[in-house]
Amino acid sequence: MNIQQRLARGDNTQFMEAHNGLSAKIVEHVGFEAIWASGLSMSAAMGLSDRNEASWSQVINVLEQMADNTSVPILVDGDSGFGNYLNVIRFVKKLQQINVLAVCIEDKMFPKVNSFIGENQALAPIDEFCNKIKAAKDTGGSDFTVVARVEALISGRSMEEALERAEAYKEAGADAILIHSKKADASEVFTFSERWGGKLPLFAVPTKYYKTEYKEFVNHGISNLIWANHLIRSSVRSMKETAERIFKEKSLVNVEEKVSSLEELFSLTNERYMDDLEAKYNP
Amino acid sequence: MNIQQRLARGDNTQFMEAHNGLSAKIVEHVGFEAIWASGLSMSAAMGLSDRNEASWSQVINVLEQMADNTSVPILVDGDSGFGNYLNVIRFVKKLQQINVLAVCIEDKMFPKVNSFIGENQALAPIDEFCNKIKAAKDTGGSDFTVVARVEALISGRSMEEALERAEAYKEAGADAILIHSKKADASEVFTFSERWGGKLPLFAVPTKYYKTEYKEFVNHGISNLIWANHLIRSSVRSMKETAERIFKEKSLVNVEEKVSSLEELFSLTNERYMDDLEAKYNP
Amino acid sequence: MNIQQRLARGDNTQFMEAHNGLSAKIVEHVGFEAIWASGLSMSAAMGLSDRNEASWSQVINVLEQMADNTSVPILVDGDSGFGNYLNVIRFVKKLQQINVLAVCIEDKMFPKVNSFIGENQALAPIDEFCNKIKAAKDTGGSDFTVVARVEALISGRSMEEALERAEAYKEAGADAILIHSKKADASEVFTFSERWGGKLPLFAVPTKYYKTEYKEFVNHGISNLIWANHLIRSSVRSMKETAERIFKEKSLVNVEEKVSSLEELFSLTNERYMDDLEAKYNP
Amino acid sequence: MNIQQRLARGDNTQFMEAHNGLSAKIVEHVGFEAIWASGLSMSAAMGLSDRNEASWSQVINVLEQMADNTSVPILVDGDSGFGNYLNVIRFVKKLQQINVLAVCIEDKMFPKVNSFIGENQALAPIDEFCNKIKAAKDTGGSDFTVVARVEALISGRSMEEALERAEAYKEAGADAILIHSKKADASEVFTFSERWGGKLPLFAVPTKYYKTEYKEFVNHGISNLIWANHLIRSSVRSMKETAERIFKEKSLVNVEEKVSSLEELFSLTNERYMDDLEAKYNP
Repeated sequence: MNIQQRLARGDNTQFMEAHNGLSAKIVEHVGFEAIWASGLSMSAAMGLSDRNEASWSQVINVLEQMADNTSVPILVDGDSGFGNYLNVIRFVKKLQQINVLAVCIEDKMFPKVNSFIGENQALAPIDEFCNKIKAAKDTGGSDFTVVARVEALISGRSMEEALERAEAYKEAGADAILIHSKKADASEVFTFSERWGGKLPLFAVPTKYYKTEYKEFVNHGISNLIWANHLIRSSVRSMKETAERIFKEKSLVNVEEKVSSLEELFSLTNERYMDDLEAKYNP
Repeated sequence: MNIQQRLARGDNTQFMEAHNGLSAKIVEHVGFEAIWASGLSMSAAMGLSDRNEASWSQVINVLEQMADNTSVPILVDGDSGFGNYLNVIRFVKKLQQINVLAVCIEDKMFPKVNSFIGENQALAPIDEFCNKIKAAKDTGGSDFTVVARVEALISGRSMEEALERAEAYKEAGADAILIHSKKADASEVFTFSERWGGKLPLFAVPTKYYKTEYKEFVNHGISNLIWANHLIRSSVRSMKETAERIFKEKSLVNVEEKVSSLEELFSLTNERYMDDLEAKYNP
Repeated sequence: MNIQQRLARGDNTQFMEAHNGLSAKIVEHVGFEAIWASGLSMSAAMGLSDRNEASWSQVINVLEQMADNTSVPILVDGDSGFGNYLNVIRFVKKLQQINVLAVCIEDKMFPKVNSFIGENQALAPIDEFCNKIKAAKDTGGSDFTVVARVEALISGRSMEEALERAEAYKEAGADAILIHSKKADASEVFTFSERWGGKLPLFAVPTKYYKTEYKEFVNHGISNLIWANHLIRSSVRSMKETAERIFKEKSLVNVEEKVSSLEELFSLTNERYMDDLEAKYNP
Repeated sequence: MNIQQRLARGDNTQFMEAHNGLSAKIVEHVGFEAIWASGLSMSAAMGLSDRNEASWSQVINVLEQMADNTSVPILVDGDSGFGNYLNVIRFVKKLQQINVLAVCIEDKMFPKVNSFIGENQALAPIDEFCNKIKAAKDTGGSDFTVVARVEALISGRSMEEALERAEAYKEAGADAILIHSKKADASEVFTFSERWGGKLPLFAVPTKYYKTEYKEFVNHGISNLIWANHLIRSSVRSMKETAERIFKEKSLVNVEEKVSSLEELFSLTNERYMDDLEAKYNP
């Protein structure tokens, strides 16, 4: 079931971050209904900052690896759209080609800066951003989901502006609204949801307000949650620990049991399926 | 100091696996002298098997991310060279362009299959493989290191053939020999080293015989160790655990403390340096 | 109508060579029913020899530009399949993704050398090549066309071997046979066709025997003709003349009338359509 | 001799357009001192409009083919820099990696539109554009040339603004000024040059005012001329004619003599050099 269908049914959905083919396979394996292809995580995996250092086509290459090797629907973090409406059109066409049918775009300028860095980042003019939404929807067609990410709160603007922007994005054709916040609790997200009144499904990203319980979101009318960067952060912690131990001990003795087995890795990368192909075509 | 210089000085060197820009930065951060850009790991990160599913230019793209974002020398796992001598030449030229000055090639056929899968894999004819070594050396020049990986033991051939191949590869210009084994202990690697007699520096890959101590390798005349896939295996374990916990608990409460902080991630991706650029060029 | 459908109807089809998005648009504009995406031409456009210097993914990037900007079906010159059956599978999957639904593979080794260079090039074992055909067909499905190119005649083998190979490739599932020849006349191609007896549709490539008339091919049961490299050769001649004139005369006065107008170029690259998008999304 | 050195010596230089590896080789073969890697031409070759439909990394891929296969210095049309100062930095770093040491950036917005399309296109704020120049110079170092392209005249602004902008760009570190005009004669370019007074070397692009003689430019103090798109326009004309003839005549008889020979094509793509490699490494 794709994301457009999930939204139509009003499902509650957890989107788990992935940043390459391998992490996407893990998300699928664990059972999540949807993948969040995080811009921050994909950039970080390449060793790059979250400021559009990677070109949009380099991002497509990563997404292609994710989509080619999984069957879970992917919602792509499209940042601010990689330029203007025209770049959005190009990006959406390429997403369709690799069978990725949902994008989230945010109302900041290009190039963007990660929302948790600095204060009062500039926002895109409403009309201009609405035209990006229209362009994405017209290009993607009825199966394609466009989530409009409202950065007003996180950029120090008023709740009124956040609601005004959300309303405009809805009119422009957005399928859902992502209301972003960097408060330590979910209060302003909940206030937004109450005033929004369910006019479109809502997404929240509990990175800073991570202590809020899932059911609270649901109770406040927020049906879609994005666990935005926890797999890459998990991998950083473990890779650091493993590297430090090996460096210090010059030995794998205390490492072997703490890492996945080669066989487990091979099972994620379909080596057994490849064995079947080998038997079939290269007997 | 590049790898050619380390080999010339007879240094003992630990090569720690990395598979993308981020893991390469971690290896550098922890203090290793050299990076092993593992073919298995780079493929797995893309979600692909270790059978040359990725094209050589897709591998170059990953290496570029690693080299662009680190200053530690990188030894690339060049598999069997992506075809014949001509493909080796192309690959080496591209490595130089991204400032990666060392490649390891193995004496198997193209496309290769991971050495730990199946038994008695076919080996390349000695002459043909020697021509790949020559082509790589002629193309790379004096700063460029070519490590010749002998798969004879792991493919069920005799110690004599392993030694004969190593000798031929030395004559062809190889700078070092990687003697591969999948035994549970290092005995056949040590036997090889004794009979080899130090004619060229040796590399070992203690993936299966992980209990052998570092000093034993050194005592047996093996100065270069490759920890071949432990960062990606570490990340698989931790990403699985994190994903499973979030999926089950629908909450980050028990996750937040177990993953690296956003600030730690930002520090690996140079966000603070980027802030300086922003202050300088976009005041 | 795709190539599979044309073959099924027994249509006579002219395949005109193209090597990038622009030349593909010209082929479409002129009215040809199908495009031949020549390996020689695509490589040459990149400045590379016809020996698999370009990786298969670099070839896909070119094909993507061609397919994205035209609606004429494309038959891709897949050389010898970029490796073994596994590389063929990868290539076919990627072709489908960019909506290219026909590939021609030849029974030479990887990496290949252009057929008009040297003599007596080595051929692939029949079984191995049949497995590539099977893998391509199994991957591509019923809409996907696989043309098997028989290099026996051009490599100095007998007519009997050519027929034997064609028969085996038919049994393996090929949709058509391309019988290649570098004779100055079409006699051996016609002999092949007579002995073949129409068991599958035939392709011919009249590069060397260019004086043979179209109707002769049709009369001899060859329904598909590939004009294999004439657009790139045409562009080389004209670019050389233009560059030489400008270099010598240091002036455009005698050039302007001999080259297409900017407006003509803009019309090929859809600038007027882009103006409409601009009016719609950026008023 | 690179472009920085030519500018320092005050040489008169003709920059001939190229758009891929093949056309670059032709420019080199004919004897030009420098290549203009035209954004319009590179985009058109891909089948795309001149509006930044291609990502900056796709442009780098084309430039890589050009630089890998020639030894003539290349001046890259960097459009408006693919975003802000940060994208300029990324682009310049990648240019250095492929040994392209000169870029021209224009003072328009991102994404850009070809200067000959529409009227009164928006210009970048002077300060912002100066920061792009500084970023490019700081990144590229002393061997790297930055040409600042002034679009004021072509966008309907005054001569005073054009001069003011050029002065600011000079202060920001530009190595030369490209003064663009779409008038049918060179008068406004000459007026600019007179008022400019040789403070930095000047570039002109006589696409519309193609009747002006070379010596007139030199006499008016303009030492660098860009023949901006004539090879691709030449190839469009000839490919169309060739395709139309083949389509109509279903025959190569009247085409063969009008296109370059296969041998000529092979000589441009180094097939003879490749034969030598084959003899050396695959005897």
